[in-house]
Amino acid sequence: MKNRGILIVLSGPAGTGKGTICKEFLKKNPDTVLSVSATTRSPRPGEQHGMDYYFTTRDDFEKMIAQNGFLEYAEFCENYYGTPIKAVNDKLDEGMNVILEIEVQGAMQIKEKKHDAVFVFIAPPSKKILRERIEGRGTETPAVIEKRMLAAETELKQISNYDYIIVNDDVESAVKRFEAIKEAESYKTTRNEEFIREVCR
Amino acid sequence: MKNRGILIVLSGPAGTGKGTICKEFLKKNPDTVLSVSATTRSPRPGEQHGMDYYFTTRDDFEKMIAQNGFLEYAEFCENYYGTPIKAVNDKLDEGMNVILEIEVQGAMQIKEKKHDAVFVFIAPPSKKILRERIEGRGTETPAVIEKRMLAAETELKQISNYDYIIVNDDVESAVKRFEAIKEAESYKTTRNEEFIREVCR
Repeated sequence: MKNRGILIVLSGPAGTGKGTICKEFLKKNPDTVLSVSATTRSPRPGEQHGMDYYFTTRDDFEKMIAQNGFLEYAEFCENYYGTPIKAVNDKLDEGMNVILEIEVQGAMQIKEKKHDAVFVFIAPPSKKILRERIEGRGTETPAVIEKRMLAAETELKQISNYDYIIVNDDVESAVKRFEAIKEAESYKTTRNEEFIREVCR
Repeated sequence: MKNRGILIVLSGPAGTGKGTICKEFLKKNPDTVLSVSATTRSPRPGEQHGMDYYFTTRDDFEKMIAQNGFLEYAEFCENYYGTPIKAVNDKLDEGMNVILEIEVQGAMQIKEKKHDAVFVFIAPPSKKILRERIEGRGTETPAVIEKRMLAAETELKQISNYDYIIVNDDVESAVKRFEAIKEAESYKTTRNEEFIREVCR
C-alpha cells in the first residue's frame, strides 16, 4: 500500500540558503522531487526544457491560466512563471513527494485553494545574520542590499501563514529538520486513510 | 530562548506495544517526561507515590474535579484515575515535553478542551497481528481474548480523531517515528511565536 505523495511548499527570503537546503535534501531523499515551473521567458544558455523550466509561449501560458492549469502563477518583469498542476499531481499520485520552491505570493495562492500541502518557511537565525549573508556576497551595491532586506522583511511577516519554520543556522541541521517534517507528515492520520480503513475492517 | 514543551497524548489498544514504545522513547529523549496520574485506588506492592501514581482519597479527588484540576479523568471499577493539570503545566512551562499515556476516552476529553496537544495513536500492523499478539501471551481465556479484541476495535474506530498514527511493526522503527513527530512538532510556527516576533522586529 503506497500513500499519495506530500506536496511541500518551501519559501523563504533570498539569502536564507533555501536553494542549498533543497538541493541537499533532494540528494538524500529519493522519494522526493522538485517541481519544474513553466515560464514564458527565453531559455538562458545551458537551461533545458523540462529540467530547469518548461519553456512556453505567452499565448499557451494564458490558455493554461484560463483552464485552471496552474497551482499558482505570477508575472515578474513581463514574464509569467507558474507551477503546472498536472505534472505535480502525476508525481503525487505515483507516491512521490513534490517540493515547490516558490515565493510567498505563490505559496499563499496555493493555501487559499486549500490543497493538502505542507508549508515550510526557511528563516535566517536573525535579521542581522541575513544582512551579513547578503552583504557577504560582496557583489551588491548598498541600494540592492537595502532592496533585498526590504523584500526579506515583507516575506518574514508571512511566516505565521506557514505550518513549519526551519531556522537555517547550519545547512546539515536544517536538512535534518526538513527530513523530520517530511517523515512526521507521512504519519498524519489524514494521509493514512487507506490503512485506517483496512485496520478497522 | 526556550519554547514551551509539547503535550503529547499517546493512545492505542492493549497489545499494540504502546508501553514499550513509550519506555524506549523516554530513555532516548531526556527532553520528555511521562505524566503521573492521580488515582483513588490503593497502592500495589512496590508502587511509589509520585512515581507510579499520586495516590489520593476519593474526597480529595472529587474536590479536584470540582476545581477543574484535571486535564482528563475517568472512573474504572469504582476507582478514579486522572491527569492533574498543574503537574503537567509546570513541566511544559519548564520547556519539557510531557507524554500522557491514556485511553481514547480521556484523550477525547483533552481534545474537546482544545489544549494545544499532539494526539498520537499506536496501531497494530493489522487486526490479525493484534489478535496473534493477544493470544500469544498464552495466559488469557478465549472469553478474555474476545473482550480485548472488542475493546481494541472500539478504540481503533477513533484513530481519525488523532493527528498521527504510528504503526508498531517493530519497536525500534516505531520509536524513531515517534521521535520524528516530536521533532517536527517543535518546528511548528505556532510553537515558535517568540522567535518569529524576534526575527520580524
